[in-house]
Amino acid sequence: MSDKKRASDFVDEERLWARQMYLATFGETSKGGVNRQALSAEEIEARKLLMDWSAEIGLTAFIDDIGNLFFRRDGTDPALAPVMTGSHIDSQPTGGKFDGSYGVVAAFEAIQAIIDAGLELKRPVEVAVWLNEEGSRFAPGMMGSEAYAGVRSLDDMLPVTDREGVSVKDALPAALAATPDATHREFGCPVFAFLEAHIEQGPVLEAEEKVVGVVTGIQGVRRMRVRVTGEEAHAGTTPTAERKDAIQAASKIVTELYEQINEDPQTKFTIGMMNITPNVPSVISSEVLFSIDIRHENSEYLEKMAVRTEAICAEFGDVCKVEAWRIAESDSVYFDDRMTAAVEEACVALKTPYRRMFSAAGHDARQLSYICPTAMIFVPCEKGISHNEAENATPGDLRDGAKVLADVLTKLGNDTDTNTKEV
Amino acid sequence: MSDKKRASDFVDEERLWARQMYLATFGETSKGGVNRQALSAEEIEARKLLMDWSAEIGLTAFIDDIGNLFFRRDGTDPALAPVMTGSHIDSQPTGGKFDGSYGVVAAFEAIQAIIDAGLELKRPVEVAVWLNEEGSRFAPGMMGSEAYAGVRSLDDMLPVTDREGVSVKDALPAALAATPDATHREFGCPVFAFLEAHIEQGPVLEAEEKVVGVVTGIQGVRRMRVRVTGEEAHAGTTPTAERKDAIQAASKIVTELYEQINEDPQTKFTIGMMNITPNVPSVISSEVLFSIDIRHENSEYLEKMAVRTEAICAEFGDVCKVEAWRIAESDSVYFDDRMTAAVEEACVALKTPYRRMFSAAGHDARQLSYICPTAMIFVPCEKGISHNEAENATPGDLRDGAKVLADVLTKLGNDTDTNTKEV
Repeated sequence: MSDKKRASDFVDEERLWARQMYLATFGETSKGGVNRQALSAEEIEARKLLMDWSAEIGLTAFIDDIGNLFFRRDGTDPALAPVMTGSHIDSQPTGGKFDGSYGVVAAFEAIQAIIDAGLELKRPVEVAVWLNEEGSRFAPGMMGSEAYAGVRSLDDMLPVTDREGVSVKDALPAALAATPDATHREFGCPVFAFLEAHIEQGPVLEAEEKVVGVVTGIQGVRRMRVRVTGEEAHAGTTPTAERKDAIQAASKIVTELYEQINEDPQTKFTIGMMNITPNVPSVISSEVLFSIDIRHENSEYLEKMAVRTEAICAEFGDVCKVEAWRIAESDSVYFDDRMTAAVEEACVALKTPYRRMFSAAGHDARQLSYICPTAMIFVPCEKGISHNEAENATPGDLRDGAKVLADVLTKLGNDTDTNTKEV
Repeated sequence: MSDKKRASDFVDEERLWARQMYLATFGETSKGGVNRQALSAEEIEARKLLMDWSAEIGLTAFIDDIGNLFFRRDGTDPALAPVMTGSHIDSQPTGGKFDGSYGVVAAFEAIQAIIDAGLELKRPVEVAVWLNEEGSRFAPGMMGSEAYAGVRSLDDMLPVTDREGVSVKDALPAALAATPDATHREFGCPVFAFLEAHIEQGPVLEAEEKVVGVVTGIQGVRRMRVRVTGEEAHAGTTPTAERKDAIQAASKIVTELYEQINEDPQTKFTIGMMNITPNVPSVISSEVLFSIDIRHENSEYLEKMAVRTEAICAEFGDVCKVEAWRIAESDSVYFDDRMTAAVEEACVALKTPYRRMFSAAGHDARQLSYICPTAMIFVPCEKGISHNEAENATPGDLRDGAKVLADVLTKLGNDTDTNTKEV
């Protein structure tokens, strides 16, 4: 890093916070949160805002076939692959102002700081905005980063439908059409390195009074669906012995799963979605479709729990039919040592209190780590609350995260070492 | 009954079946069932069909403020209150062709048979079509008959909303406007007697090869709602010990309730609806709102089970908040002896195999029984299946039920005895 000028000195807390708050008005909820689900009208409007920011700073916009946006500041050597930073702007239906958005706002802030510092970097630096990280409207999420990294094909994603039966294929054209000034880009274009800034979504940094989490990896996850099929019948007339009550059977399975799979306190086991058919008070339910989300840092143990989950579901197929299947699975990933070291060094240089930590939540950085050296920068969020409209963070913490980001980007932007797993 | 001509001889199986099948096209589903929920576009179109039938037969149409329809054939003595027969045309979202509809079609057929037989009755005879019996869109149901009988006030019903937030007040004007030729009628106009024909919705008649069930009463019911309030949080990051998972808590309660409240095999215990917030896979649920429907012929035992249900819910309020409340409750009702005797006599005269039976399902006849002598006529349905698109019945059974109905209406239409609980 140059001794003369540091990009971090040009990170502007007020400008960052103003952008963060303005972005939060797109899909804002009455409880102070955000409902800006992937490819919704609100998310599409927010894309136009990013185009405006890009134009203000003088970046060049690109878009790929799944709607990932990229905003590029050119480097001095056109032969070099870009350093990329960013996150996502889609939210949970009752999400907060910072999840994902912070990584995008911090990326713009860091690049603007590099420009304001007058630093010319050899490599291009890009803001990446990945489509549908959350997966609450179109499940499973991570579509943008998975498509880009070649983890899942576009053809697998396009038929996915939301609750109203609208498919990704139906919803995508409006998003693609919203940014006519963005140049088309292919999936998998080479990336030198990827850095994602994000709120921690957990209580550790706040409790330990650290400002930055140097993220060393992401815990593995198994995502499953279970369908319990019973038989629709009249609630008032059908004798108990003749019933095939899907809610009754599903509740037993759910209760048993929570008891058995939660054994190890490190396990995160969640059933967050239950869709019931026909879901009316006076009809015995004919179907319950529910989600399972299991996470654990130890990939071997995680797989054991997934297998046990399947076995428990199978045990309950006496009265109703029970089918369980996996929709997404990933083992724990560990980020590139040189990347985490670079983040750590920036924290030291900036005297920012930090700690190394493992990410319990999934992030687009997982997918990028398959194709290039990757790391993440966590900042604290209030009480660790996330996926909740009450999600909060302080302007100062967000600023300090962006400072670290700006300096690491500067370093990587001048790194001409190609001895990496760059594709 | 006149020895010369019996209305039952003029009941036309083909005409009745044709009407039944035509009505079933309003809201027909791909699986052969009907989705014609109260005040839906399909239900409103079906109202116009009934207006057509009424005009064809020469009846006069009336409508009240909740959208109940009445089709009247005048009697010879304008001073006498009408004999009323009918049921409802709204269905469950995945309902069948006969539930409710049969009682309306049979009512039209019986009156037309009386007219075709050339029988002039002293009393008016009316087809009644009660609004929102099912209560699956706007809960609880029985709105039309409850409003008419003064059991519940219109003001209590108008604010009730469906899942999309549309209230009865919002949806009603379109239904009222659909039948401009119907004259306005006040709630609670005197009724001399009420008869409702309906499919059994249970397996007894078919199993015993009876064609008519002489219904002696309706079992009591307790309808409740339970709200389990947890705390929305990230599925991947929130430690198990800190979670307030509403689905986890609700599943425990549901499992416990099914075990404890189902003790007596005569009890019908159903949880048919569970609405989850936010209902997405990667967020710990903050709320589950579920329905409870308990029915038992013994009103005292039924109340005991309702109290026990409330106690069980209260026991589970450790991690999440649990609130249980009643939305509708009724004890078993027993129909007027002279009415059930009249139905029985008609069966004997027509040599129709019958049995006396208690109704496990709720019906509009319950509310009418509070204001006038009431009875019901059940006909068999295939395997007892109802509240299901596979609901089925035979043309011959439907005809035989309508024959009994026509002859009992004839008898009551000439009954000038006012020593009843007529209002």
